[in-house]
Amino acid sequence: MKSEATAIDVPEASGATKGKAPILTVPRQEKGGMNRGLGIIDLVLRIGAMVAALASAATMGTSDQNLPFFTQFFQFEASYDDMPSFEFFLIAMSLVAGYLVLSIPFSIVAIVRPHAAGPRLLLLIMDTVALTLATAAAAAATSIVYLAHNGNASSNWLAICNQFGDFCQQISAAVVAAFMTVVTFMFLILLSALALRKH
Amino acid sequence: MKSEATAIDVPEASGATKGKAPILTVPRQEKGGMNRGLGIIDLVLRIGAMVAALASAATMGTSDQNLPFFTQFFQFEASYDDMPSFEFFLIAMSLVAGYLVLSIPFSIVAIVRPHAAGPRLLLLIMDTVALTLATAAAAAATSIVYLAHNGNASSNWLAICNQFGDFCQQISAAVVAAFMTVVTFMFLILLSALALRKH
Repeated sequence: MKSEATAIDVPEASGATKGKAPILTVPRQEKGGMNRGLGIIDLVLRIGAMVAALASAATMGTSDQNLPFFTQFFQFEASYDDMPSFEFFLIAMSLVAGYLVLSIPFSIVAIVRPHAAGPRLLLLIMDTVALTLATAAAAAATSIVYLAHNGNASSNWLAICNQFGDFCQQISAAVVAAFMTVVTFMFLILLSALALRKH
Repeated sequence: MKSEATAIDVPEASGATKGKAPILTVPRQEKGGMNRGLGIIDLVLRIGAMVAALASAATMGTSDQNLPFFTQFFQFEASYDDMPSFEFFLIAMSLVAGYLVLSIPFSIVAIVRPHAAGPRLLLLIMDTVALTLATAAAAAATSIVYLAHNGNASSNWLAICNQFGDFCQQISAAVVAAFMTVVTFMFLILLSALALRKH
């Protein structure tokens, strides 16, 4: 009696799960797991990019340096707001950092609902815009940082980093952090494209 | 007899087409048509971006200007190779134009085979890299063009556009063309993302 009851129970149970699980849910779950993994990497990279963008904006914003001597007419001071490129850099990187904060909920939605293409597509498009903004800011600041370090003989623009060493170090660090943000954005776009393809 | 024969013929024919066409082929063709349309827009935009990138590189490359007077020691000349940013601009925009030429066959493959995700994904990733390169070149040159027009009082860098008017006009035109390339790239990435989503 006991052995018969177990022998009947087994095919019933397996038949019930076979009828529902492998045909409908398992391949879907596998795809969802893949997309969920991509979504988690996306979230981690996004937080990293946010930290880099914030650090870059903060370094640029606090880069002013006063020299310890002054004349009757001048106090020698260097600050980011002497250069329009650096002002643009600060505004653009702050915007990018703000966008990254706002994008985190969408990234979480993409993890929770791995099959929804809408949030992924939105993130991809907004990431492309933010990538362009961050790249423009970083490149514009880089060309001025290069001038500040090396000057330019043809147009008689002299290097200012001899006098303002700390200032130059800070703006260089801000530019490096901005380029780290740019590289992270490129990976984010790659991830979004891979996740979109899986649908 | 006649009326009966026609009455029998009609359901037979409609049954045969119903069994094959609407379930399997029609939605696939519709999707393919949508993707083919996106692919044709992609090709047209790509050719436009290529023309803009070539024009931008050519304008920058031919921007040298000699002033009609000279001293014993100097001939007053302005050229793109006085500035590292402009040299980078020329190299980067030439690379982008070359990439766009090479990408046209992939764009055509995406039109001919609207269901293949591979070429689309490749184009999206390479477009992102080219977008970053073009944006960096355009922004770096822009910040120098701004300096050449306006100078900078804090660091005592004088404007050079008073002397070199034609040179400044040409480099400004090159920068504008580069930004047109950048905007076109953003639309190309949007198109690729939309086409990937349809699969």
